[in-house]
Amino acid sequence: MNPKLTGRRTFLQGVAGAAATLPFVSRPVTAAPADLTISEAIALILKDIPKAPSRDTVDTVKSGDPTRKLTGIVTTFMATYDVIRKAGDLGANLVITHEPTFYNHRDETDWLRSDAVYQAKRRLLDEKGIVVWRFHDYWHAARPDGIMTGVLKKLGWEPTGKERIFTIPAMSLRDLALSLKQKFGSPSVRFVGNPNQSCRTVGLSPGAYGGGPQITLLSREPIDVLVCGEIAEWETSEYVRDAVAAGKAKGLIVVGHVPSEEPGMEWLAEWLKPKLPGVKITHVPAQSPFNYV
Amino acid sequence: MNPKLTGRRTFLQGVAGAAATLPFVSRPVTAAPADLTISEAIALILKDIPKAPSRDTVDTVKSGDPTRKLTGIVTTFMATYDVIRKAGDLGANLVITHEPTFYNHRDETDWLRSDAVYQAKRRLLDEKGIVVWRFHDYWHAARPDGIMTGVLKKLGWEPTGKERIFTIPAMSLRDLALSLKQKFGSPSVRFVGNPNQSCRTVGLSPGAYGGGPQITLLSREPIDVLVCGEIAEWETSEYVRDAVAAGKAKGLIVVGHVPSEEPGMEWLAEWLKPKLPGVKITHVPAQSPFNYV
Repeated sequence: MNPKLTGRRTFLQGVAGAAATLPFVSRPVTAAPADLTISEAIALILKDIPKAPSRDTVDTVKSGDPTRKLTGIVTTFMATYDVIRKAGDLGANLVITHEPTFYNHRDETDWLRSDAVYQAKRRLLDEKGIVVWRFHDYWHAARPDGIMTGVLKKLGWEPTGKERIFTIPAMSLRDLALSLKQKFGSPSVRFVGNPNQSCRTVGLSPGAYGGGPQITLLSREPIDVLVCGEIAEWETSEYVRDAVAAGKAKGLIVVGHVPSEEPGMEWLAEWLKPKLPGVKITHVPAQSPFNYV
Repeated sequence: MNPKLTGRRTFLQGVAGAAATLPFVSRPVTAAPADLTISEAIALILKDIPKAPSRDTVDTVKSGDPTRKLTGIVTTFMATYDVIRKAGDLGANLVITHEPTFYNHRDETDWLRSDAVYQAKRRLLDEKGIVVWRFHDYWHAARPDGIMTGVLKKLGWEPTGKERIFTIPAMSLRDLALSLKQKFGSPSVRFVGNPNQSCRTVGLSPGAYGGGPQITLLSREPIDVLVCGEIAEWETSEYVRDAVAAGKAKGLIVVGHVPSEEPGMEWLAEWLKPKLPGVKITHVPAQSPFNYV
């Protein structure tokens, strides 16, 4: 918890708490957040993030005018063209996205200036008057990590003492992959390893955690399987393939980047509601873009 | 063609050519390559690669003693534990791999020193006395690109005048994905876009070509679909998802990194045979490591 609370935040929390105990009383607090600008809402959100605001982050405003009054918030894994359209339909003018808007980590756009897809997305953002703000580094920096919290709510796994390590009822690698496919709502899940290998101790790294960290988790921790969002196909999958060939009982399950982190942005909507009472906050899932044959 | 031919290479080519026209004559040439060291074989291979040898390359020797006599060559997409074992069974002591041996692009191993999988692979390499040599940058630098040549042989597509652009009989995106799954022998193929969209002009980028180059190909060239090996899931797939949502007829097919480049290493075995007559050269497929649910 960040100890540097402002008067505004303390005020909002106090009123929200009072309103929660008086559900039948008309809530004058709704007037206060309705007066918030988007920038003020962002500042308010960052009060609960350790060491925020930071200069060294990709979590910047990607479009629109944040000095305008906030009309509503959409949280999403990815501010896709469709998610932006839906935000407009919902009357929201702040889309909080986990991943980039313009197809590269730093949202650099010089190389896209004459690109028709980029131009169409910019036009849509302008038409709808939508501010896209990225909430990647900050949400991972929350304690506990906001993405991980949302994912654990979805999985129903209890945290153990060790970061990223969980114990589950023993099941085969194939059954665990099937169970994760259903829980994450992923259209297809890939795995490496012996389908019948028993899994009980699980490492969990949603998103694209990186080959080095993924392999280090598999190497240093006594986990049967690593569950992750995305890999580079010359790194973690090849490490696990070699591990199995060398006689070690290790597995890897790759659920897809979007499904693996979307629950964290669904949780963000719930996490925001008590901070911004009276503001309409909706989670709009980006969903996996993939079909499989 | 590199004009700086050595006497050795000219000699070998001349003898190979003669042998090819005299199939029933016993081939004394087999004695000459049998005397080659692994280093000499590598130098001979590099004679046909423009600007080789280069200092700025990942194409280095990853294991073993290249001053030893060459006993046979295995080409593969990836020098996995299983591929190394098979090379040993074949009596080959040079494995030519396209991708890294130790799970990161530069094959850095300091971070793996105490890792059990790395240690097991090193032990296997030592026991079998195998030199692993990477042939990634050089094979792509061959004119035409060696990987692309092998892939085109597999696909039966004819090059057009434009690099990476091909014309195929019109078919739906879904049918093209199914056809590529079968041709590449991939266990599963993902695609983004309208399954019924017609595809006739195709961009082709095997391997992990990178989000920027993949998107630039989709943006600048009049292609209906990009066929690639691997993507980062916040880059090319999201660009195509937005393109489709904005009403543009674009598709993306992701066949998997291994299946997309393995034909190039299969072709390498054929390409090497006339250069090293009498040397047993075998392509051992690494194959996709993935299962799907």
